Amino acid sequence: MRLFHAWLSSASRRVRLCLAEKNIPYESHAVDLSKQEQHAPEFLAMNPDGVVPALEITPGRFLHESSTICEYLDDFAPEPPLRPMDAYVLAQMRNFVRWTDEKSLPPLLILNWSLMLQSTAQQWSDQELQDKLARIPTAERREAWVRIARKPYSEEEKADALRKLLLLVDKMEGMLASHSTSPASSSWLMGADYSLADIAAAPFIARIAEIDPGTLAESVHPNVCQWWLAIQRRPAFAAARLQLFGEVLQERQSGTNATA
Amino acid sequence: MRLFHAWLSSASRRVRLCLAEKNIPYESHAVDLSKQEQHAPEFLAMNPDGVVPALEITPGRFLHESSTICEYLDDFAPEPPLRPMDAYVLAQMRNFVRWTDEKSLPPLLILNWSLMLQSTAQQWSDQELQDKLARIPTAERREAWVRIARKPYSEEEKADALRKLLLLVDKMEGMLASHSTSPASSSWLMGADYSLADIAAAPFIARIAEIDPGTLAESVHPNVCQWWLAIQRRPAFAAARLQLFGEVLQERQSGTNATA
Repeated sequence: MRLFHAWLSSASRRVRLCLAEKNIPYESHAVDLSKQEQHAPEFLAMNPDGVVPALEITPGRFLHESSTICEYLDDFAPEPPLRPMDAYVLAQMRNFVRWTDEKSLPPLLILNWSLMLQSTAQQWSDQELQDKLARIPTAERREAWVRIARKPYSEEEKADALRKLLLLVDKMEGMLASHSTSPASSSWLMGADYSLADIAAAPFIARIAEIDPGTLAESVHPNVCQWWLAIQRRPAFAAARLQLFGEVLQERQSGTNATA
Repeated sequence: MRLFHAWLSSASRRVRLCLAEKNIPYESHAVDLSKQEQHAPEFLAMNPDGVVPALEITPGRFLHESSTICEYLDDFAPEPPLRPMDAYVLAQMRNFVRWTDEKSLPPLLILNWSLMLQSTAQQWSDQELQDKLARIPTAERREAWVRIARKPYSEEEKADALRKLLLLVDKMEGMLASHSTSPASSSWLMGADYSLADIAAAPFIARIAEIDPGTLAESVHPNVCQWWLAIQRRPAFAAARLQLFGEVLQERQSGTNATA
């Protein structure tokens, strides 16, 4: 398999976590978002939405959407299973993953793009911006690029995005508490077994750990705190390389490119 | 099982189609959207998003999100199977269903609400509107209600919504053509077998058949035309009662309530 992804993208991180849990070997192809490679014709042939990741399963057969890719991988390589056996718990897992896509991803994009793209994007000339927009396949993303280049998110909007992103932590605390007999007993989001729900949430919590670490303190969200420690102890976590944003920014500034 | 649904809602229609294909008996509870019953505390306990449908599986155990409910029903009652056996085709089916949720549902809501809700909503006093908004659990839906009550969609916006909705027909024509040897040979969206992809699309095509029937003409989209005829011949189609919007409007005006 060949994975076309970006190191800092939450959806890419999910798929890397899943591939690592399954121990599936793959060829890593980092897509340079700053060069807009995700909107190049070769990438759009893999994913018409023009967003990372895309997985090439066999030559010429592609799959996109991280939630779909993860379920596919669990069919493709059933061990270790990453979906609950019980049909009702499985359905709840799917609704949780969907919830993170709908409620957590949009505010995180506002925060990430403000940090990583805004300072460059503001320097684009009108012509450069128009050229870039012409390559973007969806109206939603064109709008987001216009925002970041010309109408940067205000401090109030970023605070609101953070507030929305942190709703995930409260939701997870409730889910974990419902399975756990004591705050110290570690459990996973759907119960005793690690699942695609945990994989879906991990990239968001990894960002929250950088943006607002106090939220993950033992005294504030004891179950999520334990969960986050337990996730980081999994061998797949290291293998999936969820680099810190700070590190990547530093690399970028110093001109090195260890994550390429 | 008990299904809490609305007769005209696309998501509810999907679930009714799926229940009918599976021949699963259920108790039908029509939620009166005009009385905002979907935002009542009893409904929010079943689906915190405050949108139909919600399925009660066993007393006190609820499921929402039509795509999740349909996959659950296919686990719960495996015969006849409504998901492809091949993992890659299954993944493509999931992406198609998601595509309809993301790309087809928003424009259809604009068209449906303009038709069904606008004339009533414009007569609400500011106080009535505020009271209604206070009961709606999500910002997105609050915004949609404000639009329909105070800033009705323009003809241009409605034309744009229709254009976006009709993208589904082009997409389906391509999918069906890729399986079919001749335009007259009937096939389903994922190939030879009827699946949740067909169920996901049916409520949208049912609306398009009312709003813009010419699009479904044999000469315009021959494969979708055949597909739509074939869907309507399935016994589940009649059982799922995809009433015409026109009929319901007429009933409403004449004060009868055959669909309650």
